[in-house]
Amino acid sequence: MRMQGRVCLVGAGPGDPDLLTVKALRRIAEAEALVYDRLVSPEILALRAPTARMVAVGKAPGCHTMSQSRINQTLIDLSRSGLRVVRLKGGDPFIFGRGSEEAAELRAAGIPVEVVPGITAAQGAAASSGVPLTHRGLATGVRYVTGHRQGDGRLDLDWQGLADPDTTLVLYMGMANIAEIAAALIAHGLDPEMPAMAVASATTPLERRRVSRLGRLAAEMASGPLSGPVLFIIGRVVAIRRTCPQDIRAWLKATSPASVAHA
Amino acid sequence: MRMQGRVCLVGAGPGDPDLLTVKALRRIAEAEALVYDRLVSPEILALRAPTARMVAVGKAPGCHTMSQSRINQTLIDLSRSGLRVVRLKGGDPFIFGRGSEEAAELRAAGIPVEVVPGITAAQGAAASSGVPLTHRGLATGVRYVTGHRQGDGRLDLDWQGLADPDTTLVLYMGMANIAEIAAALIAHGLDPEMPAMAVASATTPLERRRVSRLGRLAAEMASGPLSGPVLFIIGRVVAIRRTCPQDIRAWLKATSPASVAHA
Repeated sequence: MRMQGRVCLVGAGPGDPDLLTVKALRRIAEAEALVYDRLVSPEILALRAPTARMVAVGKAPGCHTMSQSRINQTLIDLSRSGLRVVRLKGGDPFIFGRGSEEAAELRAAGIPVEVVPGITAAQGAAASSGVPLTHRGLATGVRYVTGHRQGDGRLDLDWQGLADPDTTLVLYMGMANIAEIAAALIAHGLDPEMPAMAVASATTPLERRRVSRLGRLAAEMASGPLSGPVLFIIGRVVAIRRTCPQDIRAWLKATSPASVAHA
Repeated sequence: MRMQGRVCLVGAGPGDPDLLTVKALRRIAEAEALVYDRLVSPEILALRAPTARMVAVGKAPGCHTMSQSRINQTLIDLSRSGLRVVRLKGGDPFIFGRGSEEAAELRAAGIPVEVVPGITAAQGAAASSGVPLTHRGLATGVRYVTGHRQGDGRLDLDWQGLADPDTTLVLYMGMANIAEIAAALIAHGLDPEMPAMAVASATTPLERRRVSRLGRLAAEMASGPLSGPVLFIIGRVVAIRRTCPQDIRAWLKATSPASVAHA
């Protein structure tokens, strides 16, 4: 018996097709209709069945090829036509993916929704660069925020809370506003010498990284921009990506005695 | 030519073997020695080659079967003996996994390290429960922290920063201290009525969830404990897991006018 009228929201991960989950790979292969974002790589789209109907709803900054309400309606229409629909999104559908908005619209239309998580860009960039997202004594936690502007043009960020040297800060979609963001973090107390890294197209053959300091990051990005979607990782963890334990201990002693004491 | 003397740190994901990445699955199948944590499920261990040497280094709360320095030495010894070594960890090796500590020790010993990310428990719990980690107007970001005590017995958390109603807070390893954590968050301004959810053994057949409010969470957990590793998700997103868009909009209007205005 075929399962009709279901939509599966699938996380396509950071880019490398090998970083799809086994379940995502299966859902893509089974899909009769594949509704996908611009950020999903051709290598991943190639995993579909040759007969699958393809619907691009790609969003590029400043160039929405299909409005969110039209995307929602497309998902509803395709699933009502009896197709096995996969909605494929870069990263994880429940982390900055608007997956929950689409899920809510589908539920309102009486259509069951399955969610398959994906490796988010922060995890992909961490693994490929060797920068951990947490590390005892350096980062007691990790935080993901977006750096794009709200509808009213302002950056809706809690600067005081974000300027926390003990938490790794990962900034999605922050390229356009990195100068303002870095300045605000410094104004709220984060050290301009805090290690920071920009990663473009993480886990793909086009991956490029730039390791810098918070105070110089924006100028360096302006003088030599990285192409593709850029993620920023800001925090002490950036400093230890190629480092041995004795160097980490020495560096900790020099920079953060309070954190080391109870690490 | 065989690749000798390399250790691959592999994220085993939240529990469901289908949520392994394709790369993790391949590394597990190729492994000649598999060094694994207690939290890795038997279904995932069963994916190994029958000839693989198995080394359990499982840590249970209050019962470290092998010290971190012995784990490090085991990885070094196995890889120097010429075996393809996989170090398998629950979740993602770079999120609360001590993966970066092991990577640093291996680098110090001259052994190359590969890192394969994994779906972290927060993502698994989100997908299976339908609770997104971010949602426009409800949570502008997400934050992962651990709720276990440091060596000196205190909870090393930035309460003021954590008591942010616009950020989804995910608490790993917080079961033992949830009463103290919830009380501190409320004391620092978080609404006792803030939706909160406990998820045990997310994405496995043993998954159990309890949806509550921050102010009642600890008492409910005490009266009916959940078995297995428990994750807490605290934030407005918990309220929308089975909700349709019109209800979300109504709820937003009632609870958080400031957030809605610029959503």
